[in-house]
Amino acid sequence: MAFAESSLARQLPHGLTDMFFEQAAIKTWLEAVLQDVFRRWGYNRIILPTFEYYDALATNASPQLQEEMYRLFDREGHILALRPDMTVQAARVAGTKLYDQPLPLRFYYIGSVFRYEEPQAGRRREFTQAGVELMGAAGPEADAEVLALAVAALQALNITRFQLNVGQVAFLQAILSDAHLDNGALRRLEQVIDRKNDVELQRTLAELGIGGGAARAIRAIPHLCGDEGVLEEARRLSTNASARRAIERLGQVYELLRLEGVAEHVILDLGEVRRMAYYTGITFHAYVAGLGFHVCNGGRYDGLVANFGADMPAVGFALGLERAMLVTHPQVDIAPQLLMRGCAHAECRALAALARSRGLRVEVDVLGRDEEALIAYAQARKAHHLVSCRGGSVYLLHDSSGSRELGREELEKEIRSWSC
Amino acid sequence: MAFAESSLARQLPHGLTDMFFEQAAIKTWLEAVLQDVFRRWGYNRIILPTFEYYDALATNASPQLQEEMYRLFDREGHILALRPDMTVQAARVAGTKLYDQPLPLRFYYIGSVFRYEEPQAGRRREFTQAGVELMGAAGPEADAEVLALAVAALQALNITRFQLNVGQVAFLQAILSDAHLDNGALRRLEQVIDRKNDVELQRTLAELGIGGGAARAIRAIPHLCGDEGVLEEARRLSTNASARRAIERLGQVYELLRLEGVAEHVILDLGEVRRMAYYTGITFHAYVAGLGFHVCNGGRYDGLVANFGADMPAVGFALGLERAMLVTHPQVDIAPQLLMRGCAHAECRALAALARSRGLRVEVDVLGRDEEALIAYAQARKAHHLVSCRGGSVYLLHDSSGSRELGREELEKEIRSWSC
Repeated sequence: MAFAESSLARQLPHGLTDMFFEQAAIKTWLEAVLQDVFRRWGYNRIILPTFEYYDALATNASPQLQEEMYRLFDREGHILALRPDMTVQAARVAGTKLYDQPLPLRFYYIGSVFRYEEPQAGRRREFTQAGVELMGAAGPEADAEVLALAVAALQALNITRFQLNVGQVAFLQAILSDAHLDNGALRRLEQVIDRKNDVELQRTLAELGIGGGAARAIRAIPHLCGDEGVLEEARRLSTNASARRAIERLGQVYELLRLEGVAEHVILDLGEVRRMAYYTGITFHAYVAGLGFHVCNGGRYDGLVANFGADMPAVGFALGLERAMLVTHPQVDIAPQLLMRGCAHAECRALAALARSRGLRVEVDVLGRDEEALIAYAQARKAHHLVSCRGGSVYLLHDSSGSRELGREELEKEIRSWSC
Repeated sequence: MAFAESSLARQLPHGLTDMFFEQAAIKTWLEAVLQDVFRRWGYNRIILPTFEYYDALATNASPQLQEEMYRLFDREGHILALRPDMTVQAARVAGTKLYDQPLPLRFYYIGSVFRYEEPQAGRRREFTQAGVELMGAAGPEADAEVLALAVAALQALNITRFQLNVGQVAFLQAILSDAHLDNGALRRLEQVIDRKNDVELQRTLAELGIGGGAARAIRAIPHLCGDEGVLEEARRLSTNASARRAIERLGQVYELLRLEGVAEHVILDLGEVRRMAYYTGITFHAYVAGLGFHVCNGGRYDGLVANFGADMPAVGFALGLERAMLVTHPQVDIAPQLLMRGCAHAECRALAALARSRGLRVEVDVLGRDEEALIAYAQARKAHHLVSCRGGSVYLLHDSSGSRELGREELEKEIRSWSC
């Protein structure tokens, strides 16, 4: 091993991270909370491989996402890649293995995804997504359920000041359907709309030869953002029946969200066209006050599953856990609740076992420390209680209220009181 | 995309798998149970990157493990690899970031590891390990804690018929210390001992020029397996003070396990020399009745952390979740507990919200199905209860005991009774 190479052994590659102590406990809390919310909404877990054939993962991916994938080779020379998201994988499973199941299918996933991009706050090159996919349901009820679940997930994380910008890529697609643009031109237009630069948009439309009602509608899109009034204006600007249907659909979803009691969190935003290349209907990003990027995004992708076999409409979202960690700050306690001096009495081991059976975090000293050294360690670790065996079934109990001697039965009673 | 390549898009590479429905729920149960046991023993989570520099991961790795690593390159040409275990990563974190923490450190981890080897039952090329590391404690108390925790983890998974074969690689290392063998010869000898082939072992010893007391001790090693009598025999065969100390240590650990009440699960097995190359003291494998390979393995690795900075003794184990799934069969229920017909009443949405707030798994229909279609779907999904709104605050409640009409208040009362 060359010296220059071995100096890498102590470093982590740029954009990767270790998590321990409070940070790891906070992330674990987020994972548990999200899994519980998803479960309550009827979603079951799907566990997907960390890498698979590049061709599968690249299905319907934008050129940018293809570029960002970490590629590797198997020993037969096939190209593999680390997954850049889990939606395409879930679509592969649905299309190849679940085509004969009763519909709809509701799945949630949680795990790492990988993108070779410049690391940002809350978004390393390996980051964690928790998300859902609702498959086999084409209607506005499915769109609304997924949006309402996104709201429920954010609320469960104690994130309160957020909004969902909900767009409808089918509207832009419908307006453009008469212009017969290729994918490159479409993507370019989406980017310009996203930048909300009127001058650049006007020039781009001219270059692409788009005029008349289509140009009027597209120029308006970056500004079609707000409450229901947006729907009326978009209807007026529609140049064909598909565009009107797309807006009608968005209206239906909005109505259902009002019924669900979550419309206050929703902004209709037809300029919301940045997207995974596979989206075909509503799309959304969730923004949290004070955070300069979305914490959650999703949408409808009706064509994706068919790439893998069975045709199945689908809608879903993914939430970035590390980003969510920037805006929610749960109290976690990783300190031992009971620290016990190590000794050679089976009776003392039984006390530790009792405390563990009551769900307490128990550390038994393995360094042979005396009482004094253990009191210092208990303070350093912020242990709630320290128990030191003094022989003859007598114990010193030390905590924030001081020290006292207890008999075994008294101590047992004490331990039972902590855990209730 | 060439046709031959794109045909890969619907397949998974050999040795990888998807998990969904009951299997995913079972794995999720195992993860939760193990995390809870580790927490009760005072272990906190550490979250490690899925890949990092190959040089870090290859530290102290055997040639076989180095060969089995999935390698990839970053865009600066550095060699990266998917982690083949998490112990080396935890050692890197301890050595580079945690050297000034109060000791000992107790960490648990859970996640995928990757090895390019022939897939076996319960061991794909991507498989899940849950394990612990106890760092900064060199004594037999630390060894015993980790062994006792392995027992507690298996018991928490409802695995009862298991044994821990506990060896001591320091014994063989001490016997061989006078022979000045290189690593290759040492590894060859370990393999022959592991195969328990006396003839082959005798020949190998002759080839390596090992005779006298050392040869006698090594020929005995494959047969030094059983209860405490093994310790006496090994003491007798010891050719130097280091060998005697190694056996004394094993005896101390066994005594502590007896104190902990778990010695019944322990077999002393000095032939237990198959190991990660980094082990330096006790090592163990846990075997379950009826399973032809270990479900859990671990040991002491006192030299590993120092490769990364601070010198810190350490001991730990890893448990294979997919292997454990072959021998434990928890009852999991992924059926919806409440299935509700979709309708346009805010009151019905509030009922679903109530049931969710009580922790129930609730599906609201998003396909606009009528009562009849929903009853069929409820049966296919094994839903516990179906509620169909009939308007005017009247509901049909359908379950295994038949169908009846309820008013809203009655239904609320019913829902509260399910969840308590």
